[in-house]
Amino acid sequence: MPRVIVCDVNETLLDVGALEPHFKQAFGDGRVLQDWFANVLLYSEVATLAGPYSDFASIGGAALDMVASARDITLSSADRTRILQGMLTLPAHPDVRDGLQTMRDAGLRLVTLTNSAPAAVQQQLTNAGLNGFFERSFSVDTVRRFKPAAEAYRSVADSLGVPIDRLRLVAAHAWDIVGALRAGCAAAFVARPGKVLYPLGPKPDITGPDFRSVAKQIVAAESRHA
Amino acid sequence: MPRVIVCDVNETLLDVGALEPHFKQAFGDGRVLQDWFANVLLYSEVATLAGPYSDFASIGGAALDMVASARDITLSSADRTRILQGMLTLPAHPDVRDGLQTMRDAGLRLVTLTNSAPAAVQQQLTNAGLNGFFERSFSVDTVRRFKPAAEAYRSVADSLGVPIDRLRLVAAHAWDIVGALRAGCAAAFVARPGKVLYPLGPKPDITGPDFRSVAKQIVAAESRHA
Repeated sequence: MPRVIVCDVNETLLDVGALEPHFKQAFGDGRVLQDWFANVLLYSEVATLAGPYSDFASIGGAALDMVASARDITLSSADRTRILQGMLTLPAHPDVRDGLQTMRDAGLRLVTLTNSAPAAVQQQLTNAGLNGFFERSFSVDTVRRFKPAAEAYRSVADSLGVPIDRLRLVAAHAWDIVGALRAGCAAAFVARPGKVLYPLGPKPDITGPDFRSVAKQIVAAESRHA
Repeated sequence: MPRVIVCDVNETLLDVGALEPHFKQAFGDGRVLQDWFANVLLYSEVATLAGPYSDFASIGGAALDMVASARDITLSSADRTRILQGMLTLPAHPDVRDGLQTMRDAGLRLVTLTNSAPAAVQQQLTNAGLNGFFERSFSVDTVRRFKPAAEAYRSVADSLGVPIDRLRLVAAHAWDIVGALRAGCAAAFVARPGKVLYPLGPKPDITGPDFRSVAKQIVAAESRHA
């Protein structure tokens, strides 16, 4: 049997860069987006290592307040809402529909796994017009441990009733690739601009510069198990 | 008995900002330092959540290579070495000696706990002229779990033979404060410029804008237990 393809959502399918104009308006500098998202990731990992657990959107709001405080900026509630609501209406990267269609045409099972909470990911996929591609959507919120903790990946295998090595994660984040491989999944890395693998981590057997190229390689690799 | 004061090292005692000119030279932009250090922290947490474990300096080197790759820059080995060796020769923040002297004069026991490996922290403290203030230096390398994992703080209590609530961490990082408090320590936050507490985490009883002010508050708080 071919593996089940598990797509990460934020940055892998959806373009978080679409929030940049909101950051430009709120902070006078669109690059604050990168700093904010790095803090969201850092504190989701802190929540997993030390607690307390909060859902991804709450951590997103807290990280936004921290980034504003650190710059001595008072965020208007309109700017704050615009950014946080913006996470729910991110557009798909332009190569994503093609890649998903390629994998679906090849008969592969497609699901998502994200740090976003279940209600959030449903809105995200629906708003981006991608919901129809996926059999199911999974959230780390079920196990209250953010990726790259092994429990997040294992919970998908358990829910689908397949061994963990029958999953292949597709992600644009090196840390997600490390987590999936260390948990026992296969993986495929979407090396979008500015994204590189972690030099000290295990390497996936598939890497490509965009989602379309990665999808084609996945179809080729998984068809050998058909 | 007053608590043992456990000082974080990088950014709390030592000024990582001293590396900025090296980043300016290597990347043409000193602000890349912040991006690099954020990645060092992120991947130290990935190492703890998912593995594999590597020491802090190795993660520092890997994160530097990632930041360079992400910008399509080839780092010369001289620039790479200058930055990584620079971590070993960081100067103390100007208010640190005074604050340490205040706590020592009050008879408090002082130790350090850092993500840096043992040999590195010895060099760091010696080069910064701070070694004489500390009874012992601890590294997370002993437990191979980076802060804010509870094991890092517990290993200090175990080594000193004191209950964990007899430790007080002093740090300029919100995530370190969260980790220490969740592990059962007291804490004190040095709110250096750009550093703010994590809104969703537990709060320390001591916060001040610099090390000197925090040290005075610690002496006052701990003298009640003398």
